[in-house]
Amino acid sequence: MPSEFPKRVSLLGSTGSIGTQALEVVRAQPGRFTVTALSAQSNAELLVQQAREFRPAAVVIGDESKYQQVRDALANQPETEVLAGAAALTEVAARPDTDVVLTAMVGYAGLLPTVAAIRAGKDIALANKETLVVAGQLITGLVQEHGVRLLPVDSEHSAIFQCLVGEEQNPIEKIVLTASGGPFRGRSREQLAQVTKAQALKHPNWDMGAKITIDSASLMNKGLEVIEAKWLFGLRNEQIEVVVHPQSIIHSLVQFEDGSLKAQLGLPDMKLPIQYALGYPQRLANNFPRFRFLDYPQFTFEEADTSAFRNLALAFEAMQRGGNAPCILNAANEIAVAAFLRDEIGFLEMSDVVESSLARVSYLAAPSLQDYVLTDQETRRVARELAGFRA
Amino acid sequence: MPSEFPKRVSLLGSTGSIGTQALEVVRAQPGRFTVTALSAQSNAELLVQQAREFRPAAVVIGDESKYQQVRDALANQPETEVLAGAAALTEVAARPDTDVVLTAMVGYAGLLPTVAAIRAGKDIALANKETLVVAGQLITGLVQEHGVRLLPVDSEHSAIFQCLVGEEQNPIEKIVLTASGGPFRGRSREQLAQVTKAQALKHPNWDMGAKITIDSASLMNKGLEVIEAKWLFGLRNEQIEVVVHPQSIIHSLVQFEDGSLKAQLGLPDMKLPIQYALGYPQRLANNFPRFRFLDYPQFTFEEADTSAFRNLALAFEAMQRGGNAPCILNAANEIAVAAFLRDEIGFLEMSDVVESSLARVSYLAAPSLQDYVLTDQETRRVARELAGFRA
Repeated sequence: MPSEFPKRVSLLGSTGSIGTQALEVVRAQPGRFTVTALSAQSNAELLVQQAREFRPAAVVIGDESKYQQVRDALANQPETEVLAGAAALTEVAARPDTDVVLTAMVGYAGLLPTVAAIRAGKDIALANKETLVVAGQLITGLVQEHGVRLLPVDSEHSAIFQCLVGEEQNPIEKIVLTASGGPFRGRSREQLAQVTKAQALKHPNWDMGAKITIDSASLMNKGLEVIEAKWLFGLRNEQIEVVVHPQSIIHSLVQFEDGSLKAQLGLPDMKLPIQYALGYPQRLANNFPRFRFLDYPQFTFEEADTSAFRNLALAFEAMQRGGNAPCILNAANEIAVAAFLRDEIGFLEMSDVVESSLARVSYLAAPSLQDYVLTDQETRRVARELAGFRA
Repeated sequence: MPSEFPKRVSLLGSTGSIGTQALEVVRAQPGRFTVTALSAQSNAELLVQQAREFRPAAVVIGDESKYQQVRDALANQPETEVLAGAAALTEVAARPDTDVVLTAMVGYAGLLPTVAAIRAGKDIALANKETLVVAGQLITGLVQEHGVRLLPVDSEHSAIFQCLVGEEQNPIEKIVLTASGGPFRGRSREQLAQVTKAQALKHPNWDMGAKITIDSASLMNKGLEVIEAKWLFGLRNEQIEVVVHPQSIIHSLVQFEDGSLKAQLGLPDMKLPIQYALGYPQRLANNFPRFRFLDYPQFTFEEADTSAFRNLALAFEAMQRGGNAPCILNAANEIAVAAFLRDEIGFLEMSDVVESSLARVSYLAAPSLQDYVLTDQETRRVARELAGFRA
C-alpha cells in the first residue's frame, strides 16, 4: 500500500477537547501531517496560539465579533488567511489544499461544513456525531456518491471500524456498543432528580467537553451513538445493542454471522481513535500509556437502565421512527443540555424536553437537507419554549 | 474475492475431539466442503462410521493391526481406499485431490504428515500445535517456500489470526494469550501434589481430548501455545504474554504499535475456530450458541502462577533456548502425561520429568528435520527412564 503521508488535515473545532488532542497527535508525529486549516467557535486566544504553532493556510473564528482580534494577532503571519462566520467555515472545509477534514465542532453546527467537505471529495474524520444523527441517510449517500472515506473518531465507532478491517466480505450479525454508564450509573429516578451540574460534569473515565459529558451522564450520548452506528455501518435497528461496561476498556464489539465477536480495547484515551482516523489505514507507533490487565483485574457488564435514563430509550424510538425524528431528538437535546448547564432545568427534565419536542414538531418521513435545517430551527424554538416553562 | 467453495478437506485425526467437531462443521455446511481423506490412530469403529457417511477417497488407520477390520467393514464402498500406518498417512496428506489438510492428530505424530502436505502445496488447518512447537522454524520456512496458508485451529491462535486480518501493514507490538487457568487455578504446590487424574481430566470450560486436558491442567498447554504463537505470528520471545482469564470468553488479544488492542471473543466452542480455519477468509453463517454479556456479567484476569505451575516457565525457557529445546520439552511432556494418565507419576512429577529431560538430552542449536526425529526418540527414552524411576 503506498504511503499517504504527509496528509493535509483541516481541523474544524480545533480548540475543543477533540481538536486540542488532534493537535497533540499531529505534534507527536512529525512529518506525517500538515495542518491546512483551524477553526474555533469563540476561543480566539487559543486559536491564535494554535495558528502560530501550526501555520495553517486558513483560520476561521465562528464568532464574527472576534474576527478583528484574530486578524490583528496574526497580522505578522501573512501565509495564514483569517476568516469568520459559518459560511466561511463551510467554504474552508471544501478547499483543494486538504486531504482529510476532522469535524470536531459541537452539535448540529457540524452538518453543513461536513456536507461541503464530502462534496469536495475530502475524507472525513468524523468526531461530530450529530452530523450522522441528524442526516445519516443523506450523508452516507453523499459519501458513496463522492467515493470518500468516513472515518469515525468516537471511540466506540472507531473500535467497530477497527474490528471490520479485512472483514469486508463478512456480514455483520450485530454490534454491541459499550457504555460506561456515566457518573450516575445505578441511580434511581428519585436520585437523578437531585443531581447537580457539577456532579454531571465529572465523568468517571473520559475527559471531554461539557456538552458530551452531560450527554454521557444522561445516556443521550449513547443514544446518539446508536443512531450514528446505524448509518456508519449500514445496520438495521435491531442489529444494535448497548451494554454498560463501567471500566470503559472494551470500546465496542462486532459479532459476525459465524457468531465470532471481535472487540477493540485500550485505556480510555481519545488520542488513539483520533490518531487512527487521521493515519488510517496505517497504525502509527506512539508512546501513549498502554493498557495492562493487572491494572484492570475485572471487567463488568450490565444492562442499561432505560427507565431511569429515558434518553437512551428516546433515541432508540427516534431511530425507529426515522425521517426527521433523530434531527428533532438532537436539536431538543442541545437546547435541553444548554438549559441544564445554565441551571434552568433539572437533570430529568432534559428527557422531558426531548420527549415533548418529538411529540410537537412535525414528522417528515423523507426530509431533504433544507428540511433538516428547518426541523432543527423549529425544534430549537419549541424546545426553548419547553425548557423556559421549567425555568 | 472469488469463492473457494466447495473446498476439498483431508481430516487427519478424524475420530478425536477436533476431528469429530470438524465433521460436525462439514455436516452443517452442505455444499461447502468435501472430505477427501479421514484418518485415525486406533478408533477403527468410528473411522468406519465416518467413512460411510462422508465417503472419502481414502481412509488411514494408524494401528496396522486394525487394517483388516477397517478394510472388511468398507468392502462394499469401493470408492474409498483403505490404508494403514504412519507412512500411509504421510502419503495421503500429500495427495493432489485435497485443498486443505486439517492436522488434528495428537502430539509429535503430526510433524511428518504436515511437512508432506506443505511440500505438496496444501493449506494447513493446524490443530496439532506440537508441529510448530517441535519444528517451528522449519515449518514456517516450508510454508513460505511453498506459498501455502497456515491456518490456526487452536482457539487462542485463531483469535489472534482473526484480529490480524486487514492489519497486514501494521506491526504487532505484543500478543496476550489468555488461559483459563484450568481446574487447579489458585492451588499451591502442596495441593497440586495431591490432585488425581480424574480431577485433572475435568476442565472447567473446554471439552477436549485427554492429552490436551491434562496439558491444560498443568499449564503445559499454554506453554506449547506460547511457542506455537511465536512461529505462527513471527514474534520475538518478549512479545508474548499470558494472562489467566477463567471465563475463557476473550480467546486472546493483539496489541499493535499504536497501543490499540484487538480481541476475539465467544463462547468456548472449538467448532468456531475449526470452521473459521476451514472457511477462511469467509465466515460461514451458523447456528452455534451465541455469547451474551448477561450470562457473563464479569470477566476476571490474573497473572499465571509459574512457581506452582512450572510447566509454563519451562516452556518459556525452552523457547528462549531455541534449537531442539522445544522438541525435548514436547517429547518429555508427552511421556510424562502418558505416565500420569497411567497413574505412574504424580501431577507435579510431570514437570520434573520435563525439566530433567531438558537438562539431559543434548542441545542442538540448528537442528535438521532428521535431528528433530532423533531428538524426539532420545528424549522419549530419557523421559521414560525418568518417569519409570518414579513409578
